[in-house]
Amino acid sequence: MDSYDLVIIGTGAAGLSAALYAGRYRMRVLVVGEEFGGETATAGIIWNYPGAPGVDGYELMKRMREQAEGVGAEIIDGKVEHIEKDGNCYSMDIKGRVVHTTTIIFAIGTNRRHLNLPNEKELTGRGVHYCVTCDGPLYSGKKIILVGGGDASVKGASLAAEYVDKVYLLVRSKIKAEPINLQEMQKLGDKIEVILETEVKEIIGSDKFEKVKLSKPYNGSDELSADALFIEIGSEPQVGIATELGVLTGPRGYIEVDRLMATNVQGLFAAGDTVSFFGPFKQDITAAATGAVAATSAYNYKKLHGNLCDKHNTVSKKEI
Amino acid sequence: MDSYDLVIIGTGAAGLSAALYAGRYRMRVLVVGEEFGGETATAGIIWNYPGAPGVDGYELMKRMREQAEGVGAEIIDGKVEHIEKDGNCYSMDIKGRVVHTTTIIFAIGTNRRHLNLPNEKELTGRGVHYCVTCDGPLYSGKKIILVGGGDASVKGASLAAEYVDKVYLLVRSKIKAEPINLQEMQKLGDKIEVILETEVKEIIGSDKFEKVKLSKPYNGSDELSADALFIEIGSEPQVGIATELGVLTGPRGYIEVDRLMATNVQGLFAAGDTVSFFGPFKQDITAAATGAVAATSAYNYKKLHGNLCDKHNTVSKKEI
Repeated sequence: MDSYDLVIIGTGAAGLSAALYAGRYRMRVLVVGEEFGGETATAGIIWNYPGAPGVDGYELMKRMREQAEGVGAEIIDGKVEHIEKDGNCYSMDIKGRVVHTTTIIFAIGTNRRHLNLPNEKELTGRGVHYCVTCDGPLYSGKKIILVGGGDASVKGASLAAEYVDKVYLLVRSKIKAEPINLQEMQKLGDKIEVILETEVKEIIGSDKFEKVKLSKPYNGSDELSADALFIEIGSEPQVGIATELGVLTGPRGYIEVDRLMATNVQGLFAAGDTVSFFGPFKQDITAAATGAVAATSAYNYKKLHGNLCDKHNTVSKKEI
Repeated sequence: MDSYDLVIIGTGAAGLSAALYAGRYRMRVLVVGEEFGGETATAGIIWNYPGAPGVDGYELMKRMREQAEGVGAEIIDGKVEHIEKDGNCYSMDIKGRVVHTTTIIFAIGTNRRHLNLPNEKELTGRGVHYCVTCDGPLYSGKKIILVGGGDASVKGASLAAEYVDKVYLLVRSKIKAEPINLQEMQKLGDKIEVILETEVKEIIGSDKFEKVKLSKPYNGSDELSADALFIEIGSEPQVGIATELGVLTGPRGYIEVDRLMATNVQGLFAAGDTVSFFGPFKQDITAAATGAVAATSAYNYKKLHGNLCDKHNTVSKKEI
């Protein structure tokens, strides 16, 4: 049985930044995450992280991990399914190991949104994908359909155009993207064909993706064939492990926090994309900043209340 | 007469991060600052900026400047003394050049606090200093007095101990510093002598600093001699140019902003150390994040209202 001052759930920009700060505060810190580096790690080249011009997302996350480990944070791969609360001590099972902690930071990011159509799950990885940066290069010289009208889609389309032959950008209503990204895409001309106000009705393919059925005809046909279908329609927070503990979320499902990243439950903090602190503005820089703030708040809480799992340690020693 | 979408006042982490984001939003951006890089540029090595391990503060600011210039932001040295408001268009004189803008971000940081004792001003730069990182190396092998009990002082004492022979750390009440920084200082042993609950009553020296008079005796004497006196007792915001326009500040003088870094006055935003958004927690990472948020808000404001200095442009054209 291990006792920590702080368990950080999530190894993206928010979680690793929190670990760096908490380590500097000399807290005993465990960071646990399912996918190292979170969304950033698969984001490709990042141009807008201040102080790290044109850094690869994975490289940026590696640097943050080195910084966190450098101040003593323990970082492990794993998934937290459920957290128990006993008084003000929290405990959880991580790969069969029981971990106790006085504070927790939820830096769990968001999960990619799906179309929820038949065949979507079956064909995922076989022509159906959710990350152009990650899987786009597989379709060099081919034709892809990209679904979504947000910033990620527009950036994705520009990126994909560097290696694929043709991108159909399928937008349900209108494009909502950063002007600079839209301009970049428009510069690429014919390689990207934008189809507005059109949805995917069916995903067709037996062994691998073949085509989609459209909600209205395009160029005289309600079917569109391509080598791959990329779905970039945003993401949603997965906050079940927090709400089970009574943590409140806002209307769109993000964890509600105050300016110091404290949730409504004592000892529980949140940071990064899993909170909706700056509205829809979710960037690496804000994730890292809110992570640092959450760590500072966890540190102040721990300093004020001491180790609230002490009794567990005592029990543990008796048991041994 | 020049018209901009956004003028950013301040070239520290907040201002340059705002410029990077605003440039990406394709805004016409002017950044004006008195001291390039703000406090960060003189901070020495920075260990806690996520993603840039052990970077020199000046180098970090240079990288941010390159990023901002890379997306078209114009960055100039200069001081803004006063801002005029005409309807919702703002104008200011920068080195004799009249600049109009629809939005402004105040990223003006804070000014170092002084002891306000006789001789302090006269001896500044002649044995009296405010930045160990900047001027400490001048006293290699010598003895210094460092005034202050906060994080900057404790870090400053450790840093100074690398080259000076002796540091007297003079603390008015108790030390309030990050535990890791305190531990680091304590490791250095005798080289640093901490004198608690003692104030400087007088600064003595004719042509250059000689000694201080203490509020109570130390080792039998109420005078303490040294080669230099470093004063690291915090800083305060200089927000006159903003409050003149009706911008509200909080009890400690920092500009009040909402979560999107908007002040109470239309078109005016603030970011970085000049706002007290995360309480006393003021770091490069939070400055950069709030700068990015402020730029996003300025962009949304400009998109909603258009160029509110248009009439000036028209007048200008007629005049020409």
